[in-house]
Amino acid sequence: MSQPSSHTLAELAERFGLRLRGDGNRRLEGIATLANANASQLSFLSNSKYTAQLASTTAGAVILREENLADCPVDALLAADPYVAYARVAALFERQPASAPGIHPTAVVDANTTVSASASIGPCCVIGHGAVVEDGAVLGPHCIVGDDCTVGAQSRLVARVTLVTRVVLGRRVLVHPGAVIGSDGFGLAFDRDRWVKIPQLGGVRIGDDCEIGANTTIDRGALDDTVLEEDVRLDNQIQIAHNVHIGAHSALAGCAAVAGSAKIGRYCMIGGNAGVLGHLEVADRVTITAKSLVTHSIREPGEYSSGTPLQDNRSWRKNAARFKHLDDFARRLAALEKDKNDE
Amino acid sequence: MSQPSSHTLAELAERFGLRLRGDGNRRLEGIATLANANASQLSFLSNSKYTAQLASTTAGAVILREENLADCPVDALLAADPYVAYARVAALFERQPASAPGIHPTAVVDANTTVSASASIGPCCVIGHGAVVEDGAVLGPHCIVGDDCTVGAQSRLVARVTLVTRVVLGRRVLVHPGAVIGSDGFGLAFDRDRWVKIPQLGGVRIGDDCEIGANTTIDRGALDDTVLEEDVRLDNQIQIAHNVHIGAHSALAGCAAVAGSAKIGRYCMIGGNAGVLGHLEVADRVTITAKSLVTHSIREPGEYSSGTPLQDNRSWRKNAARFKHLDDFARRLAALEKDKNDE
Amino acid sequence: MSQPSSHTLAELAERFGLRLRGDGNRRLEGIATLANANASQLSFLSNSKYTAQLASTTAGAVILREENLADCPVDALLAADPYVAYARVAALFERQPASAPGIHPTAVVDANTTVSASASIGPCCVIGHGAVVEDGAVLGPHCIVGDDCTVGAQSRLVARVTLVTRVVLGRRVLVHPGAVIGSDGFGLAFDRDRWVKIPQLGGVRIGDDCEIGANTTIDRGALDDTVLEEDVRLDNQIQIAHNVHIGAHSALAGCAAVAGSAKIGRYCMIGGNAGVLGHLEVADRVTITAKSLVTHSIREPGEYSSGTPLQDNRSWRKNAARFKHLDDFARRLAALEKDKNDE
Repeated sequence: MSQPSSHTLAELAERFGLRLRGDGNRRLEGIATLANANASQLSFLSNSKYTAQLASTTAGAVILREENLADCPVDALLAADPYVAYARVAALFERQPASAPGIHPTAVVDANTTVSASASIGPCCVIGHGAVVEDGAVLGPHCIVGDDCTVGAQSRLVARVTLVTRVVLGRRVLVHPGAVIGSDGFGLAFDRDRWVKIPQLGGVRIGDDCEIGANTTIDRGALDDTVLEEDVRLDNQIQIAHNVHIGAHSALAGCAAVAGSAKIGRYCMIGGNAGVLGHLEVADRVTITAKSLVTHSIREPGEYSSGTPLQDNRSWRKNAARFKHLDDFARRLAALEKDKNDE
Repeated sequence: MSQPSSHTLAELAERFGLRLRGDGNRRLEGIATLANANASQLSFLSNSKYTAQLASTTAGAVILREENLADCPVDALLAADPYVAYARVAALFERQPASAPGIHPTAVVDANTTVSASASIGPCCVIGHGAVVEDGAVLGPHCIVGDDCTVGAQSRLVARVTLVTRVVLGRRVLVHPGAVIGSDGFGLAFDRDRWVKIPQLGGVRIGDDCEIGANTTIDRGALDDTVLEEDVRLDNQIQIAHNVHIGAHSALAGCAAVAGSAKIGRYCMIGGNAGVLGHLEVADRVTITAKSLVTHSIREPGEYSSGTPLQDNRSWRKNAARFKHLDDFARRLAALEKDKNDE
Repeated sequence: MSQPSSHTLAELAERFGLRLRGDGNRRLEGIATLANANASQLSFLSNSKYTAQLASTTAGAVILREENLADCPVDALLAADPYVAYARVAALFERQPASAPGIHPTAVVDANTTVSASASIGPCCVIGHGAVVEDGAVLGPHCIVGDDCTVGAQSRLVARVTLVTRVVLGRRVLVHPGAVIGSDGFGLAFDRDRWVKIPQLGGVRIGDDCEIGANTTIDRGALDDTVLEEDVRLDNQIQIAHNVHIGAHSALAGCAAVAGSAKIGRYCMIGGNAGVLGHLEVADRVTITAKSLVTHSIREPGEYSSGTPLQDNRSWRKNAARFKHLDDFARRLAALEKDKNDE
């Protein structure tokens, strides 16, 4: 475990190209919210909802936009985008678990593998036939890298990650515990009175800088591969079915699901527990709000939704019961209009 | 494996403060439903739906309310709340896996940890730097207790539980297999054309007597902690995002999800696959029905819902198509009313 | 790792009872889509959407229906159901990971177990007291077979599968990584001001030829067992609560969930992220579309749905707001009709 570091305001200003107002020698040892930060901590103001907290902050310094500077009672670092600046500065204060190069004695590594000498293989890892682990990759405890899988340079499997077979991770991919990548796609043919399993002969390709959340599952393809392009960000408990293709820089929130062979564009944002049906195409820069179901292909960028609003249960029951008669209402409404026009 | 025990009716009556009718020497070796129990088994009647089964039960004895006693053909234990009494009595008949104190030889324990001599650490467990395992805690096989995590006294990680980092479990916490607690919150800043990861510097605090279901995920906070107060009960495959706060005695059913920084009150009940959007507040004693989405803060106790009723697909298609014209209908309806009033 | 095999067209025709048109000596080394197959690969045409790709395919041969034979520019195998034939033929080209009989030295096997000499137990597996692993069963790395569990003959736990306790798998059951079977059902009694846990004394029975997806969870019963009959197919991240019963040959897509004590019939199809509330019954041959919620028992075969259609967010907001007034609309519509009839 590395020790948390401390930094002067002047160091931070120079390192991240931020303009400094105040005491460059001020030493900061951590980062905290405006409400909670103390004099040895840095804070930030990005969301205008928190502007009111600025006046009373006891932070040592605050990252903010020039327009908020006049209201800041303490030292400041000026950023065009304080949220991005916060993200970068916070990384300095993160304690990363130590991960020395080498293979832990409890790991089980097949004779036919290529593991870089600079890679770190943790306790109880299992690495299968034909697998490759590239330079600087870190496998935390209990990771399984199955046959013919590759873990790209500087990638990190936090702990208990399973790559089943024919999975290729790019560089700097981060995978959280419990994720399962490369399991069988759900392919079945119905033969008279029972199911016949369709072998899943494809693999999974994950681009550079992707992040895969805890307990997320990504199936391998039936014939071709399941693909995530670079910088795709998946939250926890997401389900990506076989032969899905997700474009670069798209982000999916927790519990979203994409059915087989769907194609999601670049820079898309899929909300929590939203779903996309199989074989659909979603254009670049589409946003789907939480819990919506995409039932047809989307050709135009923009925001899309389905569902009904939350109500107290008594009101909801009354309205929901009427939903079953909407088509009838439509006909009756049209009939009334026709009568009126016929008068 | 401890052997299942047997108990006389008189023992049970005294131990749980229940009134006995019948043969106190009757010996019971297990517990079963009214329909299936045999003469050496105890049963219970709590839900009035099953009252009709009482007359024909072949159980050795039945836990029930006084009002049902006249209809009971066998011995009985009287309880004000037979369901609670059943819960307590059933615990006597549960065979708990043996878990002798000590550390299994295949476990990997960092030199810098504090593991109580009365704790039980199972096969292939991995315990990281700075971790604490308190008195009587039981870690089943394949648990990972990451850096700076604490497992409170008498807590039980059934098997394959992952505590990633900065996770503190209270006393008597029960965690089921596949749960991941303390993984990175899903924090991203968008910098011109790609994502920048926001380090997740907070932790997770879980109160006494909480239960966490199989494959449930609880992310650690970005700056402050994610918090579950005492006696919170989470079913399987629940997703709790970073900085969520859940009040004491709330219970969430399977596949529910709570987005970042949402605050759920005490004594809430969240139905299966229901969702709560980020940064919302939900008051104490709120019930959300299954698959509903909470899209605004809820200030009053009560039951809340969203969604539409199930119909045969043909009817549903017709009605759902009309949903897209509801706003139009509203205007046309108002126009007809206006015309009528103008007449 | 077995080597991929190659087969002549004549061999395939004979083995699978298909009629051959063309060069029986043609040797095929794999299977691919019509668009991607090369001259040493077999392809298939099942979905009429792809008929247009037939004319330009460069596959060595194609499995198809007689009606498409005239349009096929290459050799062909004729099948009544090309999709089923493809499923069977593809299995020949699947490379299965090697799994030699025997117990890996890193596995931890209780003294009181019955493990067949022909079973294969992988690295870091843990097998508990009273467990049985039958002939030819394969446990990949990191599987946990808890106390009193049985893995039936020829079953395969791919990797990191957890059978908690009292789980009986039939023959040829396939379970994918991260699945947790036999964890505690979510049973709680509310005692004045806090929860009392209800011990889960039942088990789980899984029939022959079932498949259980990655990170799927199946809880054990409270008193009786949770049951899957034969040939039930569960995709990834499905939640099956305690005492659920699922009939033979039913298939559930990813992220579906079935609440406690629900009974699903035979040959049912449950769509992705669909839900079934507790204690309901669903008849045989019922299809539930994706994301629908089953809120009442279904007595008749057929297709059922709930939900609203996807729209651009602006239109959706307008319509969704009107949903809250549907009951009011219904009354106003009826009033207008009454006025008209009274005229």
